[in-house]
Amino acid sequence: MFYVPKVLQKLISNILPRQSFKMVKYLKQDEAINIDQELFNVYKFSVDQLMELAGLSCATAIQKCFPPISHQKVLVLCGPGNNGGDGLVCSRHMQLFGYSCEVYYPVRTDKLLYNNLMHQCETSGVLVSDSLSENMSTYDLIVDALFGFSFKPPVRAKFLPVMNALKKTNKPICSIDVPSGWSIEGVPDKDAINPDMLISLTAPKECARSFKGKYHYLGGRFIPKKLEEKYQLELPAYPDAECCLKL
Amino acid sequence: MFYVPKVLQKLISNILPRQSFKMVKYLKQDEAINIDQELFNVYKFSVDQLMELAGLSCATAIQKCFPPISHQKVLVLCGPGNNGGDGLVCSRHMQLFGYSCEVYYPVRTDKLLYNNLMHQCETSGVLVSDSLSENMSTYDLIVDALFGFSFKPPVRAKFLPVMNALKKTNKPICSIDVPSGWSIEGVPDKDAINPDMLISLTAPKECARSFKGKYHYLGGRFIPKKLEEKYQLELPAYPDAECCLKL
Repeated sequence: MFYVPKVLQKLISNILPRQSFKMVKYLKQDEAINIDQELFNVYKFSVDQLMELAGLSCATAIQKCFPPISHQKVLVLCGPGNNGGDGLVCSRHMQLFGYSCEVYYPVRTDKLLYNNLMHQCETSGVLVSDSLSENMSTYDLIVDALFGFSFKPPVRAKFLPVMNALKKTNKPICSIDVPSGWSIEGVPDKDAINPDMLISLTAPKECARSFKGKYHYLGGRFIPKKLEEKYQLELPAYPDAECCLKL
Repeated sequence: MFYVPKVLQKLISNILPRQSFKMVKYLKQDEAINIDQELFNVYKFSVDQLMELAGLSCATAIQKCFPPISHQKVLVLCGPGNNGGDGLVCSRHMQLFGYSCEVYYPVRTDKLLYNNLMHQCETSGVLVSDSLSENMSTYDLIVDALFGFSFKPPVRAKFLPVMNALKKTNKPICSIDVPSGWSIEGVPDKDAINPDMLISLTAPKECARSFKGKYHYLGGRFIPKKLEEKYQLELPAYPDAECCLKL
């Protein structure tokens, strides 16, 4: 990787086709964990704040690629951790954008924030359930918010049925931050899921190099300049006030 | 006011010039307070969440009307309450958008959220100060986040100098939710400020009828459908995934 000033990046990205401009750092698992910890401990962000921005950027990116007019009925799969929390926030914003969302949320975190996020979904018209629909083909789009950057294989027994359903579906899958089941730094298994869209949050993780789907977005525009520099993230310049951008 | 379905609203707003389409409800002070309370108590949102979305929508609206390329140096005036909190969040996002922000924050709320919001500003490169610059003409743009929908006149002594400076400046002023000093339901005094931009949050307040500036935006896209219906807000249809819209 080599350093390119932001002004030049913007110029180049306007000339070259978007896909060919991917000079962004890919994070190892411990880097992703450290950045996350710094945001909370050093920069004093609350989980409420960053999850709201992350989930909103995912909903916005999805709206650009799979608008509600063609992909009305959405199933959002939420895991037990922060990735699942991002999914809950994402589903609430998608509902406001005109989608009809259902959330599968089998293992719930009994924390105030998570209880409230679930309540916000339900009172916004999002159906939250802990039983998995047999047939994913009744949905137009699947949002995968099962496991994020702290995932270590293998997948727990409780999540094997939903992982199997994800592997079988022919509906478009949008993965939040990490395609679920992929190890963060390695190469995905032969039978791993192959999402159509990946929304990397703050910066792509190492495994995103293996992403072969159509849409790779970056979201979570909240990294202070100093933190970006400390981890040499070399984030691409977001256009205007956009909360996400296509990589 | 009469009822117009969303689809028809969108159609009309595409045909008519934007300014002529203002079929939106204006809130009385107690309605604004009640909606706010319901968001927290019934819908279980945290202040962190909604302030983040409100502040982001203000920064986004300002970026559309006064982009950093022409209005680089910004002074954000923050009051002691939630309006000031929105200003702190707004300044942090504006800094990420490429502005160079300074915050005047003379009366601080000693709550964890407010201390953290201030810390986030400072660690993002925003200068936070409790002394007012003598000369506002060194800035390109003033953001007014002094008083919000719970304001009742008169202005406290501590804020008279900044109000006087605001009245005198010839720099563009963007007011968050309410032009500071205006009573929420009445008509502004002869010597009241006349902002160039007003970003109404969730819904315009009664006093916004007297706004004569160039840009009136709506932000704070987080009202659940049920709450919108309960208060018959008849919010205009936000386009796509936009977090603000021009009224």
